[in-house]
Amino acid sequence: MTQNIYDNAEFFERYSRLPRSVEGLDGAPEWPALRALLPDLAGGKVVDLGCGFGWFCRWARAQGAAGVLGVDVSQEMLARARAETSDAAIVYVRADMEQLELPTATFDLIYSSLALHYIEHLSVLLAAVHRALVPGGRFVFSVEHPVFTAPAEPGWSVSPSGRKSWALDDYLEEGPRSTDWLAKGVIKQHRTLATYINMLLGIGFTLTHVQEWGPTPEQIAARPTLADERRRPPFLLVSAKRWL
Amino acid sequence: MTQNIYDNAEFFERYSRLPRSVEGLDGAPEWPALRALLPDLAGGKVVDLGCGFGWFCRWARAQGAAGVLGVDVSQEMLARARAETSDAAIVYVRADMEQLELPTATFDLIYSSLALHYIEHLSVLLAAVHRALVPGGRFVFSVEHPVFTAPAEPGWSVSPSGRKSWALDDYLEEGPRSTDWLAKGVIKQHRTLATYINMLLGIGFTLTHVQEWGPTPEQIAARPTLADERRRPPFLLVSAKRWL
Repeated sequence: MTQNIYDNAEFFERYSRLPRSVEGLDGAPEWPALRALLPDLAGGKVVDLGCGFGWFCRWARAQGAAGVLGVDVSQEMLARARAETSDAAIVYVRADMEQLELPTATFDLIYSSLALHYIEHLSVLLAAVHRALVPGGRFVFSVEHPVFTAPAEPGWSVSPSGRKSWALDDYLEEGPRSTDWLAKGVIKQHRTLATYINMLLGIGFTLTHVQEWGPTPEQIAARPTLADERRRPPFLLVSAKRWL
Repeated sequence: MTQNIYDNAEFFERYSRLPRSVEGLDGAPEWPALRALLPDLAGGKVVDLGCGFGWFCRWARAQGAAGVLGVDVSQEMLARARAETSDAAIVYVRADMEQLELPTATFDLIYSSLALHYIEHLSVLLAAVHRALVPGGRFVFSVEHPVFTAPAEPGWSVSPSGRKSWALDDYLEEGPRSTDWLAKGVIKQHRTLATYINMLLGIGFTLTHVQEWGPTPEQIAARPTLADERRRPPFLLVSAKRWL
């Protein structure tokens, strides 16, 4: 089973204060790019894998989705999601995504934001996603970018001449990484970009778009600390389609 | 027009001494991985974009290809390719790949090894490749990996604790990079991995496999200096298909 760090009290408390937790989707700088990959949701059935506080589930309903299933492993997050949702067409389910069972050929969109890099047996989950989509259905997700998850000691390095760079290491060594993000010992799974793509292709997905996200000039002007994110992308965004 | 560095005497002389120039395909550590992406060549028509000394053209014929067209911009390289080839079914043509014209729906495989990162207007060339393939035809290529081409000052950095890493920088800033590889001022075009993939998808290719190449344990045992290449992949290998 994947580590459930979101039910660690210290982690949860700190996570709850991030802009994306307080402001919702608009607090996530990559959200406009991720939203641009989404199909028209009107009348569609939608799943959000790693739904957290339910921001996306509620947004999807506001776009006209007929029904939304939010899945998360964190009791704390689902409790808040349920408290902030009053809509019978949104259902929140607690599940370990490694053992998720979904009805077959049912959903028009399966979405996941920054959750899949926690999953150890990802190919099992992706196969379940493929089966659960209707033919023509979309799978749109973001993960931490592989250049971001690769180093055992993630961080910036500064050369003697003062040039700043991301200390990329161990890129081709896939597997768990223990980092101290918001709490000590958060376990993420490092995979190469090629592995994400080949897993999707191997399962039968057709790839439709890949984006290595970085901030726009406008975003940097509004929040100058984002500028370093163009040195190496923090997020990978992928759109894929179930063909048949 | 793309810089023709291979006809620079100093560059050519040094390039000619690299293992991949002296030993041919087996002198390139990524060759077994690239070969594994190739379709059966028996009876097929093949193009090699950036054919250099013609090693791949001759190998393709030995695999049973009916005809092979080798394209390169370097007079020096084509002169040696012609001198080392005695096979009327291999034709070498000098061309600027940015303005290449090929017959439509003719070839079963278009191959390119470590040449496309020199091309400025790549999408024009990729569209020409797509048109020149028969439906079901394959496009298999390698380029320098985007994490390798990204930094303005490529190289390793060593942290105060002695940890070695690749100084990744400017990844999202696409465009020319001037490096001093074998000669001063070699111009390569940096593109993100997403750009390579989205260009292919936008033209109508179906992606079949992506590999971020690094050496195997056996290769490192035979040549220990290769070990650092696992910290960040030096090459990107891609296989795509013309569907219709």
